[in-house]
Amino acid sequence: MTAEFTVSVPADVPGEARDTYIENFTLITQGSGRLMLFAGDQKVEHLNDDFYGEGIHEDDADPEHLFRIANEGRIGVFATQIGLVARYGQDYPDIPYLVKLNSKTNLVKTAQKDPLSPRITNVEQVVRLRNQSGLKIAAVGYTIYLGSEFEDAMLREAAEVVFEAHQNGLLTVLWIYPRGSAVKDEKDPHLIAGATGVAACLGSDFVKVNAPKREGATSAELLKEATMAAGRTHVVCAGGSSIDEAKFLKELHEQIHTGGCAGNATGRNIHQKSLEEAVRMCNAISAVTIDNAPLEEALAILKGKN
Amino acid sequence: MTAEFTVSVPADVPGEARDTYIENFTLITQGSGRLMLFAGDQKVEHLNDDFYGEGIHEDDADPEHLFRIANEGRIGVFATQIGLVARYGQDYPDIPYLVKLNSKTNLVKTAQKDPLSPRITNVEQVVRLRNQSGLKIAAVGYTIYLGSEFEDAMLREAAEVVFEAHQNGLLTVLWIYPRGSAVKDEKDPHLIAGATGVAACLGSDFVKVNAPKREGATSAELLKEATMAAGRTHVVCAGGSSIDEAKFLKELHEQIHTGGCAGNATGRNIHQKSLEEAVRMCNAISAVTIDNAPLEEALAILKGKN
Amino acid sequence: MTAEFTVSVPADVPGEARDTYIENFTLITQGSGRLMLFAGDQKVEHLNDDFYGEGIHEDDADPEHLFRIANEGRIGVFATQIGLVARYGQDYPDIPYLVKLNSKTNLVKTAQKDPLSPRITNVEQVVRLRNQSGLKIAAVGYTIYLGSEFEDAMLREAAEVVFEAHQNGLLTVLWIYPRGSAVKDEKDPHLIAGATGVAACLGSDFVKVNAPKREGATSAELLKEATMAAGRTHVVCAGGSSIDEAKFLKELHEQIHTGGCAGNATGRNIHQKSLEEAVRMCNAISAVTIDNAPLEEALAILKGKN
Amino acid sequence: MTAEFTVSVPADVPGEARDTYIENFTLITQGSGRLMLFAGDQKVEHLNDDFYGEGIHEDDADPEHLFRIANEGRIGVFATQIGLVARYGQDYPDIPYLVKLNSKTNLVKTAQKDPLSPRITNVEQVVRLRNQSGLKIAAVGYTIYLGSEFEDAMLREAAEVVFEAHQNGLLTVLWIYPRGSAVKDEKDPHLIAGATGVAACLGSDFVKVNAPKREGATSAELLKEATMAAGRTHVVCAGGSSIDEAKFLKELHEQIHTGGCAGNATGRNIHQKSLEEAVRMCNAISAVTIDNAPLEEALAILKGKN
Amino acid sequence: MTAEFTVSVPADVPGEARDTYIENFTLITQGSGRLMLFAGDQKVEHLNDDFYGEGIHEDDADPEHLFRIANEGRIGVFATQIGLVARYGQDYPDIPYLVKLNSKTNLVKTAQKDPLSPRITNVEQVVRLRNQSGLKIAAVGYTIYLGSEFEDAMLREAAEVVFEAHQNGLLTVLWIYPRGSAVKDEKDPHLIAGATGVAACLGSDFVKVNAPKREGATSAELLKEATMAAGRTHVVCAGGSSIDEAKFLKELHEQIHTGGCAGNATGRNIHQKSLEEAVRMCNAISAVTIDNAPLEEALAILKGKN
Repeated sequence: MTAEFTVSVPADVPGEARDTYIENFTLITQGSGRLMLFAGDQKVEHLNDDFYGEGIHEDDADPEHLFRIANEGRIGVFATQIGLVARYGQDYPDIPYLVKLNSKTNLVKTAQKDPLSPRITNVEQVVRLRNQSGLKIAAVGYTIYLGSEFEDAMLREAAEVVFEAHQNGLLTVLWIYPRGSAVKDEKDPHLIAGATGVAACLGSDFVKVNAPKREGATSAELLKEATMAAGRTHVVCAGGSSIDEAKFLKELHEQIHTGGCAGNATGRNIHQKSLEEAVRMCNAISAVTIDNAPLEEALAILKGKN
Repeated sequence: MTAEFTVSVPADVPGEARDTYIENFTLITQGSGRLMLFAGDQKVEHLNDDFYGEGIHEDDADPEHLFRIANEGRIGVFATQIGLVARYGQDYPDIPYLVKLNSKTNLVKTAQKDPLSPRITNVEQVVRLRNQSGLKIAAVGYTIYLGSEFEDAMLREAAEVVFEAHQNGLLTVLWIYPRGSAVKDEKDPHLIAGATGVAACLGSDFVKVNAPKREGATSAELLKEATMAAGRTHVVCAGGSSIDEAKFLKELHEQIHTGGCAGNATGRNIHQKSLEEAVRMCNAISAVTIDNAPLEEALAILKGKN
Repeated sequence: MTAEFTVSVPADVPGEARDTYIENFTLITQGSGRLMLFAGDQKVEHLNDDFYGEGIHEDDADPEHLFRIANEGRIGVFATQIGLVARYGQDYPDIPYLVKLNSKTNLVKTAQKDPLSPRITNVEQVVRLRNQSGLKIAAVGYTIYLGSEFEDAMLREAAEVVFEAHQNGLLTVLWIYPRGSAVKDEKDPHLIAGATGVAACLGSDFVKVNAPKREGATSAELLKEATMAAGRTHVVCAGGSSIDEAKFLKELHEQIHTGGCAGNATGRNIHQKSLEEAVRMCNAISAVTIDNAPLEEALAILKGKN
Repeated sequence: MTAEFTVSVPADVPGEARDTYIENFTLITQGSGRLMLFAGDQKVEHLNDDFYGEGIHEDDADPEHLFRIANEGRIGVFATQIGLVARYGQDYPDIPYLVKLNSKTNLVKTAQKDPLSPRITNVEQVVRLRNQSGLKIAAVGYTIYLGSEFEDAMLREAAEVVFEAHQNGLLTVLWIYPRGSAVKDEKDPHLIAGATGVAACLGSDFVKVNAPKREGATSAELLKEATMAAGRTHVVCAGGSSIDEAKFLKELHEQIHTGGCAGNATGRNIHQKSLEEAVRMCNAISAVTIDNAPLEEALAILKGKN
Repeated sequence: MTAEFTVSVPADVPGEARDTYIENFTLITQGSGRLMLFAGDQKVEHLNDDFYGEGIHEDDADPEHLFRIANEGRIGVFATQIGLVARYGQDYPDIPYLVKLNSKTNLVKTAQKDPLSPRITNVEQVVRLRNQSGLKIAAVGYTIYLGSEFEDAMLREAAEVVFEAHQNGLLTVLWIYPRGSAVKDEKDPHLIAGATGVAACLGSDFVKVNAPKREGATSAELLKEATMAAGRTHVVCAGGSSIDEAKFLKELHEQIHTGGCAGNATGRNIHQKSLEEAVRMCNAISAVTIDNAPLEEALAILKGKN
């Protein structure tokens, strides 16, 4: 995909926004068509659980840690809420940003109420911020909980987000997670393929899904149905959930080369480390995702041998 | 209906949009007044169930399959979500498109919550896309679950959709399905006639209903009440639900010639086949719907003998 | 009321819309101040129950039947949904139209959910249609279910409808029915007087209520409280619910001359007949309502002797 | 308060609306700073219960009775719904009007659903009506049920009403009643003081509360906490609930002179009488509220000896 | 922080509003970067409970008491509802104001319904009031109940508030309290750190949290996690909840110097005193917060020895 890559612009990007769209796509995929997304939106989703506590490096307690990583490490785009972008962005003007438009905390569980993550920022505000600040805001993101009783509200907002983003030359990433009292198996490969198909119908450029699971098959193999169902919408996955970094990179490599994924969306496996280790992790992941590097090369980068 | 057909323009189409309306009507009915609608909006409604699995040709796993069929086969209009139109439309500029404006998944069942399918795209966006892209977007579609506790929300949106579409010269198709905890028999012919009457009151050009069922009568006979109740709103039906293609075409033929239908809306019976077979199926259906062809001729087309 | 009648224009009709208001009032009351409203909005409310089945003339199966009656019979205004007006209106340009702005089906019963009839068309759309088409759209209508848990939504919409209609010179008819789990006796005369008082507070020109019922009194006598409570808002009633036409006309005559009603709103008792009979029924009703004719004269018209 | 009274204009009244605000305040307080509010909005709140039946004069059955009283009696402002103002106002152009913006019926009880009274008229419509008609529309009113589960909706609307009214030079009266399943004692003096404090926070010019009740104290004494909590927002009360007019006037006198109230809001105790008696009642109340008259003088007026 | 302090302007403040933002920040922190917030918004939150009754000075019964304190005492900003600002502001033009945008009463308990505090005033209205009146309105505030079932509505409004405020050069303070049936321990330090992280993601300038509690640690120590998680968003706390003023000031001193807080938000501990004592309390708190004064100096001020 990398060498011969040219940007395909969807029809809902109007003439005057085409160049912006192409620039943004080229920027966040570093010309490769593949996306290394560094996810830093968990301070709402998981409150302080991912940033402070046992097994988490103390650097992670300060939100600026995320910006330092995104600045020094090699990433495609850094995804976080608008408030953090507005507060730190000017000190880190080289980072390509994705503004995550909706967020919820993990306090209310599905057993109490089906998940609903409301849009707290709209595309018009993102465009205003981009134009006023000159920051490299290249994309927006939105999460859908498919199968929630409030699925209708999120489908509606997601569709509007994609349309309005494209009208302004911004790229889109949808996070789609089947979740709610109606969902029995959130990792079911067939259901996850349904999720990526929904992303295609909504016209998103990228869709992030969780790695599917089924006894007797790897996530990479199971992802094939999902990447086919997504069509021209690019699927990104989380890499391995394991703590073991080599295993993580191996699974990511397979998700791309076997599963047909077009990149990764990784958060905790990066920012819970010290700045130095996090930067190396970013670089290793980017080697796999962006450079099509073999696993061994990525592992060498991880160990600081590049 | 075919030979002497002239387009009747409703009064909510303003003067400046009349020519567009007439062109669109002529385009999607191929000048016949009858509609061969190829339905490709199930990737949200049924997730990946209709596109991958036993009995489904592997071509169907990729959403582009739908566009290839719509491009090579003879159809009146291809109905799908805006995201797919925006992503693939420029490569298939000859296809007449209907943008389906609302969609829901099948994850939450009626036993848990009455069905609600929110509008995820509005007419104004469709008009913007049409004007910006030059694509042949000729119509919009919307589904109402009559008898749902959320019927009010869908009736409201549907009425607005029809009015705004007509203001812009777009045609409308309403899918109306009685469904919800209050609905005991979704296929009751009298209830389905109620549904088509609602479509008439909402001013839709076309209404798609499921084939009615009652012991001792064919769907074609049972459709008569519905096509009368619809008045000048044209009723389209699904054809037979059977796998047997000959039987499918026979039922479609009867729905038109006995039941008074003005065409068909067919999805799975087309796209679950290989491209070649799907194209032949389209052509056979179009012969019945558009050309008023006798059943034998349609069957010959189906077998590749045209 | 008839001879000396002059139109009283409420203060929410601005100067530039006064002539339109006066023309519309004069048109639909035929200069009499009394309203013969032919109700044809039941295809949503009762689906196909009122139009097809035992005891209903087969002419009624086609929605155009309503237009044929309104065109050939003598009526004040024909009330129906915007979609039917838009589809048939140009072929029947002499009919004065009232656009019914909200509608619900009868599928969900009060035991399941209190009634809510959402506005599916707004006044602005009606004004656009009127101005674009040149049709004689003279009034709008809206139904309130008083005592429903959703009463608040309907009161809000109804008030807005009246205000916006008057701003544009359109007349208003509110249908007000006490209904919902909190309502024990929908026909209680005191409650119906409450309903007409609400219509007055909302500023409607006309209010349609069901005939009140109480042991030992006629509906005409019982209507007195309601017509007093309505003040300058004109009350119209349904006439008798009986199948017997002579009895129907007698009750209507009494509702006007004893009960103080300013007309009728009649649907099924007209359109379930053949065109010829329906036309005669319209003419007989109009004689009572508009011409102040004695009952005998009306009965003669009913029998075709005018 | 009366002699030395000057109007204090709040800061949310912009420069161009200051004169209008001062004129309106002077008009409805007759230059006294005290408000005699004649409440005629019960035709929605209590349907026909307050206007027809045993113990109610037959004059009250016709809504015009309210206008005749407001026209012939001495009042500060007449509060009623926009529909009645629009219908009768031009015949009674000298009455100062307050348009009541929200209303609900009493059919759904708190045991079924907590009270919610939606805004059915907005300030912009009132301003349009005022400007188009030239009527003396000087104020708007809104009711909040504090402690209802829908309190949030009403607080939001009330705040908007006050702000928009002041922006247009209109005065505001909030009716605040603690009510709902969470409210154990609606007449608790401390709770009513809470209600007047809320009115102050919302910036209203006046607040109407029910007379507080507690064993061993008069409503006048108990009102002190509430009138202190209201600060510069003026508190008006209902007077006595008793049928006995002398007692009513005595309680009103005490509410003002002991309790610190700035007037009264009285409805049924006025309009359920014949026109002549109602006019005398208005005049007697106005003597107490506006003229600071001693109780004896007011009683003399009540008996027609002025 | 004080000496070398320069204002950092977030990127969502556009060029034309930068000077206003810097002026407002400098004004309410008195050039120190630390905030002494005097909270006077409890008349809705707690009705009259905080203002009248045993242990509360009688001065507090009148809302003007709050303005007198804010005027005579040394404070950074006075937080209250728009209605009070509009009513009293012109008489107290030197006070820097924060308009609290949402409020709810305490009548409906969490056991009945999870907390929802709706925005009753929007930023646009605050800007209009600021521009029309010339008052020193420097900031807006909003409360979020994290973990409420209605968290989504409040997160959405809060994000919009921050963005719109910054667009207009206004500062923001978010009050974030974990509360609702899903929240077991509202004072859990880790949860409170989650709350301050949310404020950072929403881009607020300041966040007010309750002092965390855990056996065996002081609130100051426990606050460290929260002030780290907040990043560049400044955390303010309530000081001690104790009645003992010396202890209150000691805890505040530690919250700042140990816990990393950037000030205080104090209400009842100030306004429930007589004007003179309240003014001294303000001055003592400001010495700690703004001047970095040692505790002994603050205590001397409290005793009137400055």
